[in-house]
Amino acid sequence: MTPAPPLPDDLAHCSIARTLELVGEKWTLLVLREVFNGVRRFEDLHRRIGAPRQVLSQRLGRLVSAGLLHRKPYQDPGQRTRYEYRLTEAGLDLYPILVALLHWGDTHRPAPAGPALVLTHRDCGEPIGLALRCRAGHELASAREVRPRPGPGAAHAADTPAG
Amino acid sequence: MTPAPPLPDDLAHCSIARTLELVGEKWTLLVLREVFNGVRRFEDLHRRIGAPRQVLSQRLGRLVSAGLLHRKPYQDPGQRTRYEYRLTEAGLDLYPILVALLHWGDTHRPAPAGPALVLTHRDCGEPIGLALRCRAGHELASAREVRPRPGPGAAHAADTPAG
Repeated sequence: MTPAPPLPDDLAHCSIARTLELVGEKWTLLVLREVFNGVRRFEDLHRRIGAPRQVLSQRLGRLVSAGLLHRKPYQDPGQRTRYEYRLTEAGLDLYPILVALLHWGDTHRPAPAGPALVLTHRDCGEPIGLALRCRAGHELASAREVRPRPGPGAAHAADTPAG
Repeated sequence: MTPAPPLPDDLAHCSIARTLELVGEKWTLLVLREVFNGVRRFEDLHRRIGAPRQVLSQRLGRLVSAGLLHRKPYQDPGQRTRYEYRLTEAGLDLYPILVALLHWGDTHRPAPAGPALVLTHRDCGEPIGLALRCRAGHELASAREVRPRPGPGAAHAADTPAG
């Protein structure tokens, strides 16, 4: 599966579509999953993800140009300089997307043996999750308590897709 | 862009990949965005999303078979029975994924005119967001406070991709 082609203009103002264009491709998201789990070197990523080397290399390059990963040089004794891949701040901010995908899959398409990965709080060891909350501090029980409203960009979007 | 092909076996136990396989396709996610915004009828979805009718029909069918949408009959005066598309409980649970994609795009790839869509709390009108929190109630400031640990399914995953 190749990366998605550029979005047509009428979708370009949808933040969901723009984000998905960047990270929605399967290998790209698997790379991000591994980097979040602390895997940073090409050979380790290659071994864990199983993507063809050229595909992996292309996806890493794309994540670097998009400002989601940056390269950090390292050198093992007697070896040439190589590069680790580290998350930038923009890359770190992708975390809720991965957590949301993981939790939905664990809940609604559980693996027979249980989850392969559990995300826990570093300080207390309890599993983590996402909570929906408003800026006034109210916690929302479900999506039914959300009201979508047109934002400042809605005028430009007119009757074409928004969001 | 056609839906992703089935995942190879060694990826099938990754909840992130399984979820993405189901909802990661562009038109599918745009359909979900619209349904979450209260758009339920084929003609309205077609007009707002701009997908070819056959593509839209195929994606809706796939979301129904996957148990994310259900069809509800309705009849306008003098018309044949038609169907609305409504979110099931499993479909409603996809909401954090869409919110996470939307917020990342609004923050890191903002549209020049501002967001076209703002999600607000029904009861107080304030914008909503996602918070990362552990089961003990601690709030996490960032992904750096999360520790990934092998879950019960990790033994089956061996050294192949997990998560």
